[in-house]
Amino acid sequence: MLKPNIETFIGCDAQYKDANIVLYGAPFDSTTSYRPGARFGPAAMRHESYAIETYSPYLDIDLTDYCIFDSGDMELSFGKSEDALADIEQRCDVILNDGKLPVLLGGEHLVTLGAVRSVYKKYPNVSILHFDAHADLRDDYLNCRLSHACVMRRCHELVGDGRIHQFCIRSGDREEFKFASEHTNMHRFGLEGFGDTVKRLYDDKTPVYLTVDLDCLDPSCFAGTGTAEAGGISVTELLNAIYAIGGLNIVGADLVELAPVLDLSGNSTTTACKILRELLLALEKETGIKKENVI
Amino acid sequence: MLKPNIETFIGCDAQYKDANIVLYGAPFDSTTSYRPGARFGPAAMRHESYAIETYSPYLDIDLTDYCIFDSGDMELSFGKSEDALADIEQRCDVILNDGKLPVLLGGEHLVTLGAVRSVYKKYPNVSILHFDAHADLRDDYLNCRLSHACVMRRCHELVGDGRIHQFCIRSGDREEFKFASEHTNMHRFGLEGFGDTVKRLYDDKTPVYLTVDLDCLDPSCFAGTGTAEAGGISVTELLNAIYAIGGLNIVGADLVELAPVLDLSGNSTTTACKILRELLLALEKETGIKKENVI
Amino acid sequence: MLKPNIETFIGCDAQYKDANIVLYGAPFDSTTSYRPGARFGPAAMRHESYAIETYSPYLDIDLTDYCIFDSGDMELSFGKSEDALADIEQRCDVILNDGKLPVLLGGEHLVTLGAVRSVYKKYPNVSILHFDAHADLRDDYLNCRLSHACVMRRCHELVGDGRIHQFCIRSGDREEFKFASEHTNMHRFGLEGFGDTVKRLYDDKTPVYLTVDLDCLDPSCFAGTGTAEAGGISVTELLNAIYAIGGLNIVGADLVELAPVLDLSGNSTTTACKILRELLLALEKETGIKKENVI
Amino acid sequence: MLKPNIETFIGCDAQYKDANIVLYGAPFDSTTSYRPGARFGPAAMRHESYAIETYSPYLDIDLTDYCIFDSGDMELSFGKSEDALADIEQRCDVILNDGKLPVLLGGEHLVTLGAVRSVYKKYPNVSILHFDAHADLRDDYLNCRLSHACVMRRCHELVGDGRIHQFCIRSGDREEFKFASEHTNMHRFGLEGFGDTVKRLYDDKTPVYLTVDLDCLDPSCFAGTGTAEAGGISVTELLNAIYAIGGLNIVGADLVELAPVLDLSGNSTTTACKILRELLLALEKETGIKKENVI
Amino acid sequence: MLKPNIETFIGCDAQYKDANIVLYGAPFDSTTSYRPGARFGPAAMRHESYAIETYSPYLDIDLTDYCIFDSGDMELSFGKSEDALADIEQRCDVILNDGKLPVLLGGEHLVTLGAVRSVYKKYPNVSILHFDAHADLRDDYLNCRLSHACVMRRCHELVGDGRIHQFCIRSGDREEFKFASEHTNMHRFGLEGFGDTVKRLYDDKTPVYLTVDLDCLDPSCFAGTGTAEAGGISVTELLNAIYAIGGLNIVGADLVELAPVLDLSGNSTTTACKILRELLLALEKETGIKKENVI
Amino acid sequence: MLKPNIETFIGCDAQYKDANIVLYGAPFDSTTSYRPGARFGPAAMRHESYAIETYSPYLDIDLTDYCIFDSGDMELSFGKSEDALADIEQRCDVILNDGKLPVLLGGEHLVTLGAVRSVYKKYPNVSILHFDAHADLRDDYLNCRLSHACVMRRCHELVGDGRIHQFCIRSGDREEFKFASEHTNMHRFGLEGFGDTVKRLYDDKTPVYLTVDLDCLDPSCFAGTGTAEAGGISVTELLNAIYAIGGLNIVGADLVELAPVLDLSGNSTTTACKILRELLLALEKETGIKKENVI
Repeated sequence: MLKPNIETFIGCDAQYKDANIVLYGAPFDSTTSYRPGARFGPAAMRHESYAIETYSPYLDIDLTDYCIFDSGDMELSFGKSEDALADIEQRCDVILNDGKLPVLLGGEHLVTLGAVRSVYKKYPNVSILHFDAHADLRDDYLNCRLSHACVMRRCHELVGDGRIHQFCIRSGDREEFKFASEHTNMHRFGLEGFGDTVKRLYDDKTPVYLTVDLDCLDPSCFAGTGTAEAGGISVTELLNAIYAIGGLNIVGADLVELAPVLDLSGNSTTTACKILRELLLALEKETGIKKENVI
Repeated sequence: MLKPNIETFIGCDAQYKDANIVLYGAPFDSTTSYRPGARFGPAAMRHESYAIETYSPYLDIDLTDYCIFDSGDMELSFGKSEDALADIEQRCDVILNDGKLPVLLGGEHLVTLGAVRSVYKKYPNVSILHFDAHADLRDDYLNCRLSHACVMRRCHELVGDGRIHQFCIRSGDREEFKFASEHTNMHRFGLEGFGDTVKRLYDDKTPVYLTVDLDCLDPSCFAGTGTAEAGGISVTELLNAIYAIGGLNIVGADLVELAPVLDLSGNSTTTACKILRELLLALEKETGIKKENVI
Repeated sequence: MLKPNIETFIGCDAQYKDANIVLYGAPFDSTTSYRPGARFGPAAMRHESYAIETYSPYLDIDLTDYCIFDSGDMELSFGKSEDALADIEQRCDVILNDGKLPVLLGGEHLVTLGAVRSVYKKYPNVSILHFDAHADLRDDYLNCRLSHACVMRRCHELVGDGRIHQFCIRSGDREEFKFASEHTNMHRFGLEGFGDTVKRLYDDKTPVYLTVDLDCLDPSCFAGTGTAEAGGISVTELLNAIYAIGGLNIVGADLVELAPVLDLSGNSTTTACKILRELLLALEKETGIKKENVI
Repeated sequence: MLKPNIETFIGCDAQYKDANIVLYGAPFDSTTSYRPGARFGPAAMRHESYAIETYSPYLDIDLTDYCIFDSGDMELSFGKSEDALADIEQRCDVILNDGKLPVLLGGEHLVTLGAVRSVYKKYPNVSILHFDAHADLRDDYLNCRLSHACVMRRCHELVGDGRIHQFCIRSGDREEFKFASEHTNMHRFGLEGFGDTVKRLYDDKTPVYLTVDLDCLDPSCFAGTGTAEAGGISVTELLNAIYAIGGLNIVGADLVELAPVLDLSGNSTTTACKILRELLLALEKETGIKKENVI
Repeated sequence: MLKPNIETFIGCDAQYKDANIVLYGAPFDSTTSYRPGARFGPAAMRHESYAIETYSPYLDIDLTDYCIFDSGDMELSFGKSEDALADIEQRCDVILNDGKLPVLLGGEHLVTLGAVRSVYKKYPNVSILHFDAHADLRDDYLNCRLSHACVMRRCHELVGDGRIHQFCIRSGDREEFKFASEHTNMHRFGLEGFGDTVKRLYDDKTPVYLTVDLDCLDPSCFAGTGTAEAGGISVTELLNAIYAIGGLNIVGADLVELAPVLDLSGNSTTTACKILRELLLALEKETGIKKENVI
Repeated sequence: MLKPNIETFIGCDAQYKDANIVLYGAPFDSTTSYRPGARFGPAAMRHESYAIETYSPYLDIDLTDYCIFDSGDMELSFGKSEDALADIEQRCDVILNDGKLPVLLGGEHLVTLGAVRSVYKKYPNVSILHFDAHADLRDDYLNCRLSHACVMRRCHELVGDGRIHQFCIRSGDREEFKFASEHTNMHRFGLEGFGDTVKRLYDDKTPVYLTVDLDCLDPSCFAGTGTAEAGGISVTELLNAIYAIGGLNIVGADLVELAPVLDLSGNSTTTACKILRELLLALEKETGIKKENVI
């Protein structure tokens, strides 16, 4: 008897009950102000992930060593951002309540707010590790407070001063940089100070939410994003940063702003797939239970 | 002394006070559920319009014979559809109140609702002439009632039964076709019955709002739209329909759903420009005052 | 508990046991001599099918009225055509043996041979209804006999003279046209004689295998195929032909040669989806059992 | 011993001395005012011609039946239009003086002037058969008299009134249409009157230069040209027109304005190849000597 | 009353009389020998500039702090290079005579010659700072002396030996490199020696014309240019070079060879916008008068 | 008398008898498992090579100084890998037997096996210098042993342990890395240890076959390849490695896996052309005889 066509990110085909990491996709980009397309990001990563291997020669472990579940894309309402955020929050609640680690695939950066709202309920002292080209600290954008350009400002309203650690930021208006100097731990342009930040979070055993806007990368290595900004970091630098956080108390994570159609070579999508594989493996490496011990 | 760089649709460089037709652009596509990009439609038409001539060999008149003003694109909020619609309505109010004919360039089809709300205030007995591949008659779409997929349903709530004349419709769910059979004057697939409809509107001197979703065209001649649907009409058929409405009492019009980036050849944009030129000339031909008699 | 991510062609989410039509994908294009890419055809149709409706206003029925099962893509070996054909034949055997109708999504046209081998075992008197721009009647192509350019010649070796009915053929070498004049029922350029052929097949109750190479369509309405050839039929003509075969004794069918990446607008993929929907509904309309009577 | 890599249009590999038709390419588009790229037309046709067959099922003859020589692309100076035209004229002189029929592949339409100057020297009573979307009758364009937009005006200065027969014209400024009404035999929009014109040219045994601007075609079937204009003819209509001229006294011909990169599907290039094959065969059919009788 | 649609580079909306920097666009690429498209560069930068911010976190100043005027694109004749150069020279004369700093947006590199001719009249001792992948020192190119490949040779005829300082040069023929070794101050491959050159120009208070061919950048970070050449510098290196020249006596500048359509991701255009913003701010930082002191 | 159109890689127009290096193209990609297109690599390099110069400012020599012959593309059978490999081996045999150095242009990486089989017959102690992102050491791939993913495994069966020196490898399954640790000299990620390897090969005067899979480069500088993998080396690093091997006893070489259509900017093709030029010059520099001494 023929089986139905289950499609997951490569190597993430565990059963939900066995999984300790759960992927969920938020195909939403309604507030994107420049070039939309991030809505297609999570599906593209799933479809194109068979172009990469499950094995990482960097970490010498394999996605198939662990139990990861891919719950697919949610069906989100375009045109009603608050509804979409509520759906994301609810999905994240379920995953957290089942004692699993939620990893969100965007979608535009606003989707992070849904996940952070959920995580914050469970971990009110959560800190946010934020990789991005943009400060995302506007109070409103064209009169709208639920915009990708405001997402870190909204997160700040939840977690408060000194809880948001921003890296690679190289674009914003003057007000955002002023706000950052008073309220967040912003590192301009690159990764300077990253080691210190990680060490502090490690020492404090702080619960950490990791949000990676893929436009933190330089456009040369990641063309497929709506507001690419020259002067970013390389994939190798980002991977090294990801390896460094393996020991932290990560309670949630996301990878956002892949807009596949903007890079017709398809390489941005496969690069995002590689980054996700390494992120999943870095998260599993420290605390994950090998599949052989689960099933 | 050097002059500032004024950019208009070709041949539409009259002063506002002299103009009898006013163009306004609504670069909005937040509720687009499939492939976005219509937000770039009106700017692309303006930029690429210099690829066509101002003269029409079909009508033997020239855009430069008349006074048309291009007011550029509005700055609309992404993520707050109701706000965007209010801005469109207000711009249309201004144009109507100054006794001029408003011609809206979209953007996704939802923008039509802003214009129809404005026109309806001035002309409560307005009829709508609607060219589209899609019925756009859903009551809500993914729980959202302000969606491009619902725009004609919202218009129906304003103008009532028998006032919406739909042509070229070849996609929708079963409910929409059922709704149409009871509440609108829908013509499936093509232009059958168009002549009769026009004759009736002419005889009754009904005020008419014309809304042209460019996906009424077959994808072979118009690839650059978010939800192209095989089986549409040709450009020549659309132009002939436009020439036919020249004698009607048109009180507002729009051209929507050009998504330039989806047709990398650029031909959809130049085709939209040609259609707009012919539409403007068809509107001017009957009632427009020649520039020589204005200035 | 979150569910796994099942991905099917839109509206084809029945259980296998209830289904009377079964889709299966053959992502193979190793012998494509010009522009490859058809391997991505079936996955693209599945992914992009949510851009169309499940309801057909042409037939006034809906995919969700019936039980259709999508078994996804097979994993086929590139570089070993005979192995790939054996896999396809085996999958088709299973479906036929379970009393269901197999509908194959290619892939290049060679994949048809796997299905025809299977069907021929069960129905030795099968006829083939063949829509294509190319005769595909070469004995070998660059010394290779298992090539997309030879597929109908290989089928002829199975089914024999007068059993292959070819339409829309407008390309081939002189030998192929000579072969056709002696061994097949070839109709050049378009659909002339189609009604007669259908009538004969209907009257004889002949078991019919339907193979649609999408390059039978004109490149203007279907750019996304590896060897598009000017002078083809329109989508409407193809749909009407498909509606006409609804009453035949169809025992297997395929839709091949969509190469999604060759049409960056995406419209070829959505057009292929629409054609597949109409084909499935045309097949169901006559003999399909409504879902309400099955489950 | 290995042989050098000779590249010709498919089936045009005769020796120069045996050939009765000679192809020559003019990769020039310096005066293109909108979207350049026609410079790559002739090379693309040569490279991609292996995607079509040498055999025509329409005419039932084969390019390999005849002796055609492809002399490749000239090296033309960008930035000096007069020099480029002189080079084209000289190449055409050589071919004509050797008693062969020159067929020019553009490039932008200005290149036609070089060939017409050459042909006019040998046939002062030459008529021009002109397929185009544009009148090309401006006296100057942005102060430049050697522009693609002026090429027929320059030709008119050579051949005089009533000698230029224009078809499919649907764009130009008012002055051009006025000029045409007084000086050329212009047919707007399509092919109305084509049969009569051909009959007259046939009866008078007039030497005819044929110039085909491929933008006479509708953009739906030919996207790859710099100034595509909706409302054109189909490929089948153009082919039928080409077949009709087979009996005329053709003394030179060209095919211009393919800009391959503007149609990323590649279909415009293969369509141009098919049109060239049919044109060459139509020219050979009447008067060509079969290869078997030559070598 | 509605206002006309003025389109400028972002933040460059001062009045001409108040401005101390004036932008002017030269949409010309007629002598481009390989892939054209630079004609669309200045318009694309203007259109897409709203994708970047007006504020620079690198320099901590904002375009809106200063008075910059954007005079739009000139209408240049294709096919007559000398005329186009004369138009550019005249526009530059006007700006210089009004005591303002001209910043030219290309177009191909030949446009620089028009500006240098103008600047040279006012500053006969001007030096040229030249960033480029190509030497541009041919005496003629395919018999044409007014070609992008000859522009620095033509400039050398004006300013003489030792006045042209070339950086990042990694392509040319043997003669050009020989010429450079005798007549210009050429630095191969990268920026070695840049600091020394800047220091000397600073100490001598030499009037400097800055010409940036964007293909000095590596293709990885700037794909959108007609003759990209591997081995170039990064955006960060170019920005640092630009910051270094802030203190020089810059009397004119240009940014050339963006060909937007060659980078379908759009990132080359936004990168060019960022480089222009930083260049304008670097020029303003030292000597510009803040808007608050002007108006 | 007009000459036939010979097309070669730029500057490689010697006669075969005079040449000491011979180029041959293998347009084959039938076993490509992800994105095909490498079949068009060698033709694209030939066509686009006129975009680069023949002179290298890096080495200060010129392709026109030497005698190189380009024998064009072979006509290979799609669908029969073993036949294609036999054709490649035979062509390489001819070149080697005539005492010339064969340089193969792919095509997918499997084509290397044909050349290595030929070289191995003449030089049984040959070593292989291998640049690649992928280990290519699978024993079979989807049951096929003649696959691009197995090519180095097949080569290992010929040349044996310790004879294959791999660099830049950053993808593969766990088994491949295990195999490498036991049987090949693999260097992960980059070029660490390259100098030592070259020194040893130099000291031992080992005959060396050089195979460069262009996906050893980072996708940022080489997007046009079927399975690009982030984390690769830069063009400058690859060129420096190529310069370093100039003194080795190179007995054969190839450059494979350029898939031109995957990089629509065209820059991957021109970069491949530059790498080939530098490779040819590096090979000629040590041992090549200048043309002036040959002819």
